[in-house]
Amino acid sequence: MGKRKLETCFSPALYEAEQHSGSIVVIIDILRASSAICTAFANGAATIIPVAEVHEAKEYKDRGYLVAAERDGYVLDFADFGNSPFNFTSEKVTGKSIVYSTTNGTGIIKMASSASEIVIGSFLNISAVTEWMTKQEKDVVLFCAGWKNRFNLEDTICAGAMAERLLESGLYTTICDSTLAALDLWGLAKNDLPGYVEKAAQRSRLRSKGLDDCIGFCLTTDFTKKIPVIRNGYLVDNVS
Amino acid sequence: MGKRKLETCFSPALYEAEQHSGSIVVIIDILRASSAICTAFANGAATIIPVAEVHEAKEYKDRGYLVAAERDGYVLDFADFGNSPFNFTSEKVTGKSIVYSTTNGTGIIKMASSASEIVIGSFLNISAVTEWMTKQEKDVVLFCAGWKNRFNLEDTICAGAMAERLLESGLYTTICDSTLAALDLWGLAKNDLPGYVEKAAQRSRLRSKGLDDCIGFCLTTDFTKKIPVIRNGYLVDNVS
Repeated sequence: MGKRKLETCFSPALYEAEQHSGSIVVIIDILRASSAICTAFANGAATIIPVAEVHEAKEYKDRGYLVAAERDGYVLDFADFGNSPFNFTSEKVTGKSIVYSTTNGTGIIKMASSASEIVIGSFLNISAVTEWMTKQEKDVVLFCAGWKNRFNLEDTICAGAMAERLLESGLYTTICDSTLAALDLWGLAKNDLPGYVEKAAQRSRLRSKGLDDCIGFCLTTDFTKKIPVIRNGYLVDNVS
Repeated sequence: MGKRKLETCFSPALYEAEQHSGSIVVIIDILRASSAICTAFANGAATIIPVAEVHEAKEYKDRGYLVAAERDGYVLDFADFGNSPFNFTSEKVTGKSIVYSTTNGTGIIKMASSASEIVIGSFLNISAVTEWMTKQEKDVVLFCAGWKNRFNLEDTICAGAMAERLLESGLYTTICDSTLAALDLWGLAKNDLPGYVEKAAQRSRLRSKGLDDCIGFCLTTDFTKKIPVIRNGYLVDNVS
């Protein structure tokens, strides 16, 4: 094939499923779902079962599963814990199957189900996930979860960071204005990532709920080499 | 009231009509609909009748109206002319009512119909339109037409330029990540606007169709003081 196409989608409301059936779709929801999923695998989780709806998560809980579930940052009352990466400790997750449902991140995994590959990306696994992509002969869509269908800054700059690495490989081309914007915003953010993210709306939301302790961690590059991918509806570590 | 809210919407697919019923909505489709509309009023047009559907434009044509109509840059076969600002000359438009239908721009005027005010913005009238807004006691939504529901760079930087002026007035506040991104992209573009727009997908689309002669003009600041607003479904000059 010629160069592979690279596209970026800023919101679930902009996702064009029928365009991407042959592509790798990278799910980016860095504050906090995609960071939490990467952390869970880094700490030994066996499987994560993403569920979009609260009632599904509750049904799994009733069947004895470990359940991580939140809406708008708050842990659902029946869940074992919520959406902070710090919840997914080795003590809690090693060897376990975890049911996981979040405000934005898990819904878009379902939306992308017709893609050729679905992979979870964050700053925590950025080198591993981008290097893995370059080894596949496929177009790539960087799918930002956003917030309730809105554009957000933090997922966009992570998409920009991934786009920079993919384009530098020489294997990809883009004619997608969203990708160009993400690259430009990443260029502004990269020298002071925590400083740039200070202005993001989600930064304020998490602070107001006392849930911002993990932000510095979520902006850490290459905490893990894990590459969570979907297999038969479950998230597993691609290299395990 | 306290400070007015400033928001930016990157695509029709992201527009939340129910949130904006009390707001001024600024329609931004600089390549080329909103630039063409500003030019038409600068050259003496009396009224522009925006219609979303091709068959509506055709019905007006059959009734004897002057019709400007295009899809994907091409003039519709029954129309008098298309979407280039250069078509809307004084000779053609002075004193006239013009029916107007375009790929992206006129559809979003209909989408915004529940807003308190709908106004057409472009670089061509940026000072006039932003100064007018500061005199209204209303929240503002900068509504980028995008391209077929996708984000585009050129409308986003124009939104950023407007946001910069509105925020500098001290009358507005924003907690909208889209506005913050538009401001940052405008900051990168402002010192060489034609150079920045070179990379936009719409720049390439217009070039490939030989329709790019007007781009430099569309990036011109303050060609006119006209402020096209919707009154009873028609566009008229607010100050006439």
